[in-house]
Amino acid sequence: MDRETISKLVNELMNGNIKKEDFVNNLTKIYSDEFKFDTNRKKRLGFDEFIFGESKNIEQLIDIIKSLKQNKLSFVCTKLSREKLDFLSNEFSDLEVFYDAGIIRYLLNPPSQQKGKVAVITAGSSDLPIAKEALITLDSCGVESRIYADVGVAGVHRFFKIKDELEEYDVLIVIAGMEGALPSLVAGLFPQPIIAVPTSVGYGTALKGFTPLFAMLTSCANGVSVVNIDNGFGAAMAAFRILNSKYKGDNNV
Amino acid sequence: MDRETISKLVNELMNGNIKKEDFVNNLTKIYSDEFKFDTNRKKRLGFDEFIFGESKNIEQLIDIIKSLKQNKLSFVCTKLSREKLDFLSNEFSDLEVFYDAGIIRYLLNPPSQQKGKVAVITAGSSDLPIAKEALITLDSCGVESRIYADVGVAGVHRFFKIKDELEEYDVLIVIAGMEGALPSLVAGLFPQPIIAVPTSVGYGTALKGFTPLFAMLTSCANGVSVVNIDNGFGAAMAAFRILNSKYKGDNNV
Amino acid sequence: MDRETISKLVNELMNGNIKKEDFVNNLTKIYSDEFKFDTNRKKRLGFDEFIFGESKNIEQLIDIIKSLKQNKLSFVCTKLSREKLDFLSNEFSDLEVFYDAGIIRYLLNPPSQQKGKVAVITAGSSDLPIAKEALITLDSCGVESRIYADVGVAGVHRFFKIKDELEEYDVLIVIAGMEGALPSLVAGLFPQPIIAVPTSVGYGTALKGFTPLFAMLTSCANGVSVVNIDNGFGAAMAAFRILNSKYKGDNNV
Amino acid sequence: MDRETISKLVNELMNGNIKKEDFVNNLTKIYSDEFKFDTNRKKRLGFDEFIFGESKNIEQLIDIIKSLKQNKLSFVCTKLSREKLDFLSNEFSDLEVFYDAGIIRYLLNPPSQQKGKVAVITAGSSDLPIAKEALITLDSCGVESRIYADVGVAGVHRFFKIKDELEEYDVLIVIAGMEGALPSLVAGLFPQPIIAVPTSVGYGTALKGFTPLFAMLTSCANGVSVVNIDNGFGAAMAAFRILNSKYKGDNNV
Amino acid sequence: MDRETISKLVNELMNGNIKKEDFVNNLTKIYSDEFKFDTNRKKRLGFDEFIFGESKNIEQLIDIIKSLKQNKLSFVCTKLSREKLDFLSNEFSDLEVFYDAGIIRYLLNPPSQQKGKVAVITAGSSDLPIAKEALITLDSCGVESRIYADVGVAGVHRFFKIKDELEEYDVLIVIAGMEGALPSLVAGLFPQPIIAVPTSVGYGTALKGFTPLFAMLTSCANGVSVVNIDNGFGAAMAAFRILNSKYKGDNNV
Amino acid sequence: MDRETISKLVNELMNGNIKKEDFVNNLTKIYSDEFKFDTNRKKRLGFDEFIFGESKNIEQLIDIIKSLKQNKLSFVCTKLSREKLDFLSNEFSDLEVFYDAGIIRYLLNPPSQQKGKVAVITAGSSDLPIAKEALITLDSCGVESRIYADVGVAGVHRFFKIKDELEEYDVLIVIAGMEGALPSLVAGLFPQPIIAVPTSVGYGTALKGFTPLFAMLTSCANGVSVVNIDNGFGAAMAAFRILNSKYKGDNNV
Amino acid sequence: MDRETISKLVNELMNGNIKKEDFVNNLTKIYSDEFKFDTNRKKRLGFDEFIFGESKNIEQLIDIIKSLKQNKLSFVCTKLSREKLDFLSNEFSDLEVFYDAGIIRYLLNPPSQQKGKVAVITAGSSDLPIAKEALITLDSCGVESRIYADVGVAGVHRFFKIKDELEEYDVLIVIAGMEGALPSLVAGLFPQPIIAVPTSVGYGTALKGFTPLFAMLTSCANGVSVVNIDNGFGAAMAAFRILNSKYKGDNNV
Amino acid sequence: MDRETISKLVNELMNGNIKKEDFVNNLTKIYSDEFKFDTNRKKRLGFDEFIFGESKNIEQLIDIIKSLKQNKLSFVCTKLSREKLDFLSNEFSDLEVFYDAGIIRYLLNPPSQQKGKVAVITAGSSDLPIAKEALITLDSCGVESRIYADVGVAGVHRFFKIKDELEEYDVLIVIAGMEGALPSLVAGLFPQPIIAVPTSVGYGTALKGFTPLFAMLTSCANGVSVVNIDNGFGAAMAAFRILNSKYKGDNNV
Repeated sequence: MDRETISKLVNELMNGNIKKEDFVNNLTKIYSDEFKFDTNRKKRLGFDEFIFGESKNIEQLIDIIKSLKQNKLSFVCTKLSREKLDFLSNEFSDLEVFYDAGIIRYLLNPPSQQKGKVAVITAGSSDLPIAKEALITLDSCGVESRIYADVGVAGVHRFFKIKDELEEYDVLIVIAGMEGALPSLVAGLFPQPIIAVPTSVGYGTALKGFTPLFAMLTSCANGVSVVNIDNGFGAAMAAFRILNSKYKGDNNV
Repeated sequence: MDRETISKLVNELMNGNIKKEDFVNNLTKIYSDEFKFDTNRKKRLGFDEFIFGESKNIEQLIDIIKSLKQNKLSFVCTKLSREKLDFLSNEFSDLEVFYDAGIIRYLLNPPSQQKGKVAVITAGSSDLPIAKEALITLDSCGVESRIYADVGVAGVHRFFKIKDELEEYDVLIVIAGMEGALPSLVAGLFPQPIIAVPTSVGYGTALKGFTPLFAMLTSCANGVSVVNIDNGFGAAMAAFRILNSKYKGDNNV
Repeated sequence: MDRETISKLVNELMNGNIKKEDFVNNLTKIYSDEFKFDTNRKKRLGFDEFIFGESKNIEQLIDIIKSLKQNKLSFVCTKLSREKLDFLSNEFSDLEVFYDAGIIRYLLNPPSQQKGKVAVITAGSSDLPIAKEALITLDSCGVESRIYADVGVAGVHRFFKIKDELEEYDVLIVIAGMEGALPSLVAGLFPQPIIAVPTSVGYGTALKGFTPLFAMLTSCANGVSVVNIDNGFGAAMAAFRILNSKYKGDNNV
Repeated sequence: MDRETISKLVNELMNGNIKKEDFVNNLTKIYSDEFKFDTNRKKRLGFDEFIFGESKNIEQLIDIIKSLKQNKLSFVCTKLSREKLDFLSNEFSDLEVFYDAGIIRYLLNPPSQQKGKVAVITAGSSDLPIAKEALITLDSCGVESRIYADVGVAGVHRFFKIKDELEEYDVLIVIAGMEGALPSLVAGLFPQPIIAVPTSVGYGTALKGFTPLFAMLTSCANGVSVVNIDNGFGAAMAAFRILNSKYKGDNNV
Repeated sequence: MDRETISKLVNELMNGNIKKEDFVNNLTKIYSDEFKFDTNRKKRLGFDEFIFGESKNIEQLIDIIKSLKQNKLSFVCTKLSREKLDFLSNEFSDLEVFYDAGIIRYLLNPPSQQKGKVAVITAGSSDLPIAKEALITLDSCGVESRIYADVGVAGVHRFFKIKDELEEYDVLIVIAGMEGALPSLVAGLFPQPIIAVPTSVGYGTALKGFTPLFAMLTSCANGVSVVNIDNGFGAAMAAFRILNSKYKGDNNV
Repeated sequence: MDRETISKLVNELMNGNIKKEDFVNNLTKIYSDEFKFDTNRKKRLGFDEFIFGESKNIEQLIDIIKSLKQNKLSFVCTKLSREKLDFLSNEFSDLEVFYDAGIIRYLLNPPSQQKGKVAVITAGSSDLPIAKEALITLDSCGVESRIYADVGVAGVHRFFKIKDELEEYDVLIVIAGMEGALPSLVAGLFPQPIIAVPTSVGYGTALKGFTPLFAMLTSCANGVSVVNIDNGFGAAMAAFRILNSKYKGDNNV
Repeated sequence: MDRETISKLVNELMNGNIKKEDFVNNLTKIYSDEFKFDTNRKKRLGFDEFIFGESKNIEQLIDIIKSLKQNKLSFVCTKLSREKLDFLSNEFSDLEVFYDAGIIRYLLNPPSQQKGKVAVITAGSSDLPIAKEALITLDSCGVESRIYADVGVAGVHRFFKIKDELEEYDVLIVIAGMEGALPSLVAGLFPQPIIAVPTSVGYGTALKGFTPLFAMLTSCANGVSVVNIDNGFGAAMAAFRILNSKYKGDNNV
Repeated sequence: MDRETISKLVNELMNGNIKKEDFVNNLTKIYSDEFKFDTNRKKRLGFDEFIFGESKNIEQLIDIIKSLKQNKLSFVCTKLSREKLDFLSNEFSDLEVFYDAGIIRYLLNPPSQQKGKVAVITAGSSDLPIAKEALITLDSCGVESRIYADVGVAGVHRFFKIKDELEEYDVLIVIAGMEGALPSLVAGLFPQPIIAVPTSVGYGTALKGFTPLFAMLTSCANGVSVVNIDNGFGAAMAAFRILNSKYKGDNNV
């Protein structure tokens, strides 16, 4: 509750422009509004609304989508099963559906293009759905990104082919399942911010993604930070925070 | 191996300035050097040398320190027990010793000051050693940071006292043990990049830091990225990568 | 086996009102009844019969329901899958079915209204089924409760909107999945008894509810007690014990 | 920020009793104070200050104790090792020291006696230190409690000896290590609120207390709620919240 | 290879009853047979053949059953899903099918009745399938057993109803899921051998049976031994070993 | 409470031999005694008193020992560290001390010899302390046992040397750390009851004994039952229950 | 980048056979090719292409198979579910399908036979699918192998029947689920290289294969090395590396 | 028991060279000897005796060493703490002591040199003790090896410096802690047998070596096999088995 606003109100009170009762009402309203509305949401998220689709049933999802459309809000809904994707795309004809990524999207306007570029690098081809989740999330926030797939440590020659290109990006999102070694290699070669994403690819000791998660967190390379298993969306959001901070003056979110 | 360097060499060969044998020698040397030396180390790390002190015994540490000093390199050695700190500070009179943070430091020159500021926020006062580890690491890279301690979720009024100040920082490092809830609160209120650090503070179900680690990774707030348990150093390095990317033109690392 | 009852019996024996054999029979019966029947069940539970439906197959459930109805007992059966709910509501036309909560209910009489009110607070909208399980359980015991949904830590402004209202409740049940931070916030602001319920909402490091469970148990706020993952029923029962103790004189269970 | 206070201030402003600038200053101060001070702390905790001693080193503890004494605050410090207890009792001659419970206490005045009684029941004699931690915590809040030790399930006859006495208590704290079975037995026999405390007593599959923790959380008895392993303090606080709610009118915290 | 057999053979050789070559052949055969055939199988198992059905597909099961029937061997096949039970009972009309227990059985002759009796006690009604698996296994070995269901610790009065009867049994098999407390109660009251069986009944912290498993292993009662989760068959076999040892002279396995 | 006792009492009452008040007193006393005293303890345990020494500090142990000696009770105290053993053997000159086994013993009289013999078999020589714990426990109950050490699966020739001897024993206790394979081998060759004891011998994936524990529980051999990690005492008690049942008529416990 | 190649190029440059620009182009191409192509793949793998089929959906698999066939490459695709096997064998008529092993194979030419033989030994018949995965992998590399099934430790006589035969093999692959004891027995009897494969056969404490995995890693026999759970393919590859090293001169991979 | 030996014996019996009783005695002795002595030990192990020192106390170690020296056997004792190393080297003046590796060694004769060479490669300098354990084990078996230290994935240029040299070795032992990524890189570049050794270097999510263990087991590179955490000895033994198989004709173990 900033002093300026209060001062103005007090002036109006003392000038007789507003009544004492209205003055008190106004003060109280400002105070409670400060906590009632998420006024910096779009600034933080770069987008109207993201919905976590996994734990919601089809009835809940339909309700939410209807409500968002009625309120003229764009939205992205992630972690949807093939069954939910089929159902929702039948129910609503105007949604974009990304099967591989498990995403539906509804855009009222094309996102305004932001400055900054993100490379989304995967160790194996099985990591692609998570890479696409990151790419579509970034795209929805107006950020350009590109996927470099299947360049893992066990065939290190493949990585060296793209080494020069990667220097052009602001942020590197590195995605790997199984032993999750790729972020260590990348962080040892590049100075950019690196967001590592473990995936649930693999079996047995891959531990549904906990092995690459733990490996990435204990990487012997410096300054790697990590998000939840299969959380392509979270990596994109972390990258967006970095770009948003870097190009704040230039980007118009 | 860039074409320009090769072209220059070929010119010298064809002009007779160098002999064929020297030409081949030079070419091979450039090629192997590219892999032999970590030429972008300081650029990536922002500092000569960081040493992980925990898994090295006192004899190994003495050898490494002697060698670094002979080679005129600055260094920071982290995760040292009180016994090692005592021993090394006796052995070498010219080291800075930070008891709380478990760090010794040797600076040949004061670090050149970088642009950008980092806030290091802790949930409890028991998280302070990790906060100091982050602060000293950043300081060694020439980055200014400030610690805001003991502002955890269970006494949320304490956090709101510092809310306005935090808007001034480029990166927020958020440190918490026990239930690790603070990053969710912070990420819900601020748009900056947020690096979360779980600590091993607590007992029983705190699981030596795995509970706050998992909590931070599954935060319902967007775009939080996380480093290893008690890894104040790693959080500082992740923050440095972000500042380095943001102020690249301005900073002279 | 209280002395008074025995004394009365002895008097009747010595007065010749009952025969020696009947005296011995009566004594033995009292003794064994004391262990044979759960005479304080309704007092403890506040309700005739609760059934855990998850581990019972459809044949077992039908048998139990038939037997309870023949014995003129009210009952609530929890943790039923949609398939079981469909099957049982077809089989028995006089059951109340709560799909979201996975509950069927059979009430011979409306529960007699008890004193005391419980607030059921959830961090996310995905926690609603567990909140409803708690609400219906309380309702069956005659306790009034109200759900406050989707007021988690990552959007702390939403919680502050309901802060004043919550002061009116006797017990606060706080339900959260993912990082499970909400009970810490609530316990830091309110003096009432707080029952925390972790849910299995989330993926990866949410560990099917173990992360919020451990987080709630290691909360840095004081006096939070916790029930099993997704155990809305158990939280309601714990709340009932508290109300039952508080209003014992007033409530007529 | 209540309307009455504001109204009074506005009256004073309009009556010319205070200057406009002072008016604005006062308003802002009230607003920020609301978040700056933990004004309901003693009400919630029933006591000035509890300190978690485990994760703080001896220097930190000395600083905190000196500061609290200078500020004329009573305090209880829990989870102190024998070394810390010895050191602190030497350093400060006016502290109460409870060796078994790992507690030091400093009371400016005897706590004002509260209504309500708590039974602290343990399965084995090895659980006594945690029982004492609970008892001293309650005592510091002015609550009377009594320990019933060594009445575990494997010798059920011992429990039945105390069965009648337990009916007199408002809250039952039930403490057990190893298989943690006692709360199930107690909850099956008594209607009161039950707070279960798992302890780290046992070896191998006792899992340092996780086995009784999990056993208590999955108890087949209804309405048991649970606190962290070895958390006698937390159980006492949960009991205090219940008594505080029950006797609010009567107790003068 | 016992001396007597060899001596007899040598005598026959020296008496000219067998040729040298046959002598050597015979010796070698005895030697290798000793390892080739499981001559003490029925003695150890008390039955021709037990098959673990869970990890075998329907084709493998059909092959094994055909082969056993051709070889005129009785068998019991455990841990079969409802699908496999349906399929196999259609395929073979002469099998006994126990749906609840997940068992099919083929008996050439009724098992010869053995001395000794086993009580199979369960904490809840959801533990019945495992109790039945134990009962049918014992029955197939000719051992009489009886199930006492639903007498868990949370309603201890139910257990005391059957207390006297249990004294008649040679071995007590105690089956419980969730917190697995029943074996501690039983072992504290009875001197017989006790085999505890944890079940996967429960959810969340029941950990699919690991919580009762660990609880039973760390029971504060003496001399409880434990088998794998849901392993009613193994408990029956352990009981059979005890009876077999006790009544060796009397039983004719 | 048996009818005969009551009938006798009633007769005395009706004959005027006792007064009505005494009659009621007597009845109530019988009733409560039934639960107050552990009258079948020695019968179940075969010994006066076993004490779990690990979780008790030296002061508690001294108190318990003094009290037991004053009450003229024999006792065995297990799981004592070398420090406690040294301290207690200095404090009390009349205790037997078994350093390897971590046991002190105080016998008023030599235990009366029981029928039945137990073989205690270990996979490695590092398992010997646990074998000795079992042996001394059995000896204290008057049961003869013998240790066969270092006959693990990796040198199977060593086991076959003792194969014939083992047939003479009533019960086989099989102790192994690391991969815990020995019980499977033994159970495949012998029909006797087998109690398996996992030990904490090994490192890394031996998981402090959980690997052999789990291996023994999932043994492909039939009828192996298992006790807690390093629980030589528990295995001895389980064996004692079996012998006690087998030779009940003959043994005079 | 070897000197010889460079020297030749320099000679051609100096002789005027190639232009300066082409010289530079050639040099750069050699350099980058060194990292771009996996020139030693067939040498390492002994086969054109192995595909991990589990984490790829049916559309991805069809694309990959079409592309490999167009490029005239042989391939083996492992870890395919029955659904995928059915689908792919319908789609492509020229694939070999191994249902038990979960493998499809496409061979342009029969593999050239290599020197060396591998024994694939399983503890139970449920381990056969993994044994077959190993056998088909080896066969595809031209290596002869044979499966010895169902010779586990619990029936050690079965193993001794095949003991002599096993001496003929170069490498022993030992496969076991449940307690995973077989590799310890084998390694104690044979000097050859031993690759142990844990399987997910078993339930409860078999931990989906982690118990045999940990048991094999902590085997008390020397020199056992281990691959991932159910990884028959990996064991075959490890065996191939050994044979390839042993018969390098003789084998023509 | 081979036919030839028996035939010879029979001949001597029939020729009257030995008596019937001696014949039987001889036969029985051969039979039992076959299982009594570990006749192929040195062949399998390549060395007289390896002792696991970790789980043995100082008294046990002194006994074993004295006995081995009296029996004129060479030995290596591994996993000794610094305290044990100090004690034993004082006690026995003729032992070789390797402090870093935690090993003492006693060689009667220098080991006869074997064919074949092993490279021992470590990711970090903290892995050196385990590398030395492997090197000394191999040296004791007469196998030449060399350590290449500190060439981990995060500084991949260091690895490429030694790439060419590594091609000369028969077996590659690859040692890494933390994220354990190095074996994937190595296996992607080299065709030789690769034994991976995870170490307990690192903290937090390094999980005392379980993270690199799991990472190595789920490596996306083919044919990596793995030993227990910190098991340098086991890796050396696995390598020895491979060399022993490869050079059997040439090596004279």
